[in-house]
Amino acid sequence: IPMEHSSDNRQLKFKEFPYVSVPHKELMVELVSTLENRLGTSLLPCTLPSDVQYFENQTGTAHGSLYVRSGNSASQVDFILGSWVHCNLPTGGALNITSLSAYLRPSTDAPNFLIEVICSSPTTLILILDLPPRKDLVQHPDYLKTFYEDTQLDKQRQRLGKLPEVKPYFSSSLYIRAVVSPSAILFSVETEPTQPIQIDELIRDHISPVAKVMLDTWLDLCACAERRLTDDESTTVAKRDRINKNKTIEIDLESSFPRLFGQEVANRVLGVLREIYNS
Amino acid sequence: IPMEHSSDNRQLKFKEFPYVSVPHKELMVELVSTLENRLGTSLLPCTLPSDVQYFENQTGTAHGSLYVRSGNSASQVDFILGSWVHCNLPTGGALNITSLSAYLRPSTDAPNFLIEVICSSPTTLILILDLPPRKDLVQHPDYLKTFYEDTQLDKQRQRLGKLPEVKPYFSSSLYIRAVVSPSAILFSVETEPTQPIQIDELIRDHISPVAKVMLDTWLDLCACAERRLTDDESTTVAKRDRINKNKTIEIDLESSFPRLFGQEVANRVLGVLREIYNS
Repeated sequence: IPMEHSSDNRQLKFKEFPYVSVPHKELMVELVSTLENRLGTSLLPCTLPSDVQYFENQTGTAHGSLYVRSGNSASQVDFILGSWVHCNLPTGGALNITSLSAYLRPSTDAPNFLIEVICSSPTTLILILDLPPRKDLVQHPDYLKTFYEDTQLDKQRQRLGKLPEVKPYFSSSLYIRAVVSPSAILFSVETEPTQPIQIDELIRDHISPVAKVMLDTWLDLCACAERRLTDDESTTVAKRDRINKNKTIEIDLESSFPRLFGQEVANRVLGVLREIYNS
Repeated sequence: IPMEHSSDNRQLKFKEFPYVSVPHKELMVELVSTLENRLGTSLLPCTLPSDVQYFENQTGTAHGSLYVRSGNSASQVDFILGSWVHCNLPTGGALNITSLSAYLRPSTDAPNFLIEVICSSPTTLILILDLPPRKDLVQHPDYLKTFYEDTQLDKQRQRLGKLPEVKPYFSSSLYIRAVVSPSAILFSVETEPTQPIQIDELIRDHISPVAKVMLDTWLDLCACAERRLTDDESTTVAKRDRINKNKTIEIDLESSFPRLFGQEVANRVLGVLREIYNS
């Protein structure tokens, strides 16, 4: 049950996920906790201004939260980034987006981690869950083998894909389609309108276990394992990361945030994000 | 109606497509003709040995044909490569694969062209139709824009995707999934077993027009347009092409050809292909 909120109240925070269903919240909280527990003190505290950790539009119909923790100087983790957006729809329903991503530094070329759950009604869900590669897989078949073939991540995709409610999802952005790995989980789910409970069951019984396997794989193989890169390799990865991060902000947020939150709030939030992405 | 063939008869040739349905043959013949007419004398004649232009296994249950024309020295076209394979299945049916691809030289970085049609029964079809990119799209958003966004190739994918018999196809090879573009047409079709005619209608009324648009786009924008590359860019593209071509042979043919045609025939045919790919 969504909590009522006025701007006079205490500020809502990222880890509260106040607008989504219990299984949806539990999924996100568990992933954030797993990530934070495992990475421990190598993550610095979140230092975002409070009006970026929580923000809303003038009419109070759209609410958002951002959460960033950077890795300390010894860490391979660049930063972890969590967010949620809740927005009332003209139809009476609401749009809820929750996401968690983890970016590594160019000291390693191992993949990043990404989950995004988009609910635009109680009976529909879009899931993006992947370890996006940081190298061109066509040029680097050994990289494909290490992170995608040997890990058998595609089995996780197949596990979800065989459920009758689940269909492949194609992002309208070709860039987003190009960014993800060949075993990326990109699904849209539509259940019978009479039984919205099914989405919750699906999150709890199917999506959560798969997301945990993906995150554990990422922690073991990517965040906490060492890859020895030459300076040239590291420079190439850094360049690709920079393009990718800026392009992702542009596609994901620059078009929707001004519409949802007004230009002023959007400028403030996106400005902070851009700083983090390019620091 | 498949023609009977014994090794004493005249050799079957690529453009005859003797084992597939009329609409399937017409599709392939039209694509090959369009390609050859448009590229004209910039393509050298096919000089493959006759036992590579047509080959079969010892028991005569598997037949194959290969067709290669290289670009002349002034052409941006490296070579065009057509093939078909026909193989009786233990179930009584037959597997038919027809393919046509066109590879460009590193004097340009424009995408290649690829179509592959796989029929393992009269009621099923797998279609792979794409302009596979020759650069990492994450690092080169301008390239993505020029060849995929501005051309609106994804509309062709959507045209086919909305047919009820058509479902997204996921290759079992992650490398093949990584090689294709984000607007690649990767579909599997399954029609009611009682009405095999539907596959033919689908090829004639839906797949053929889309394939022609894709090939025309490739001819106009890739094969016959100039891209000015620096030496460094050209070297990078050449390196990527080489890895890609060898990996594609390995995945597509090295596993299946010995099984279908026996080791001796497979060695002969793959040896010739490897030479062309690496010359």
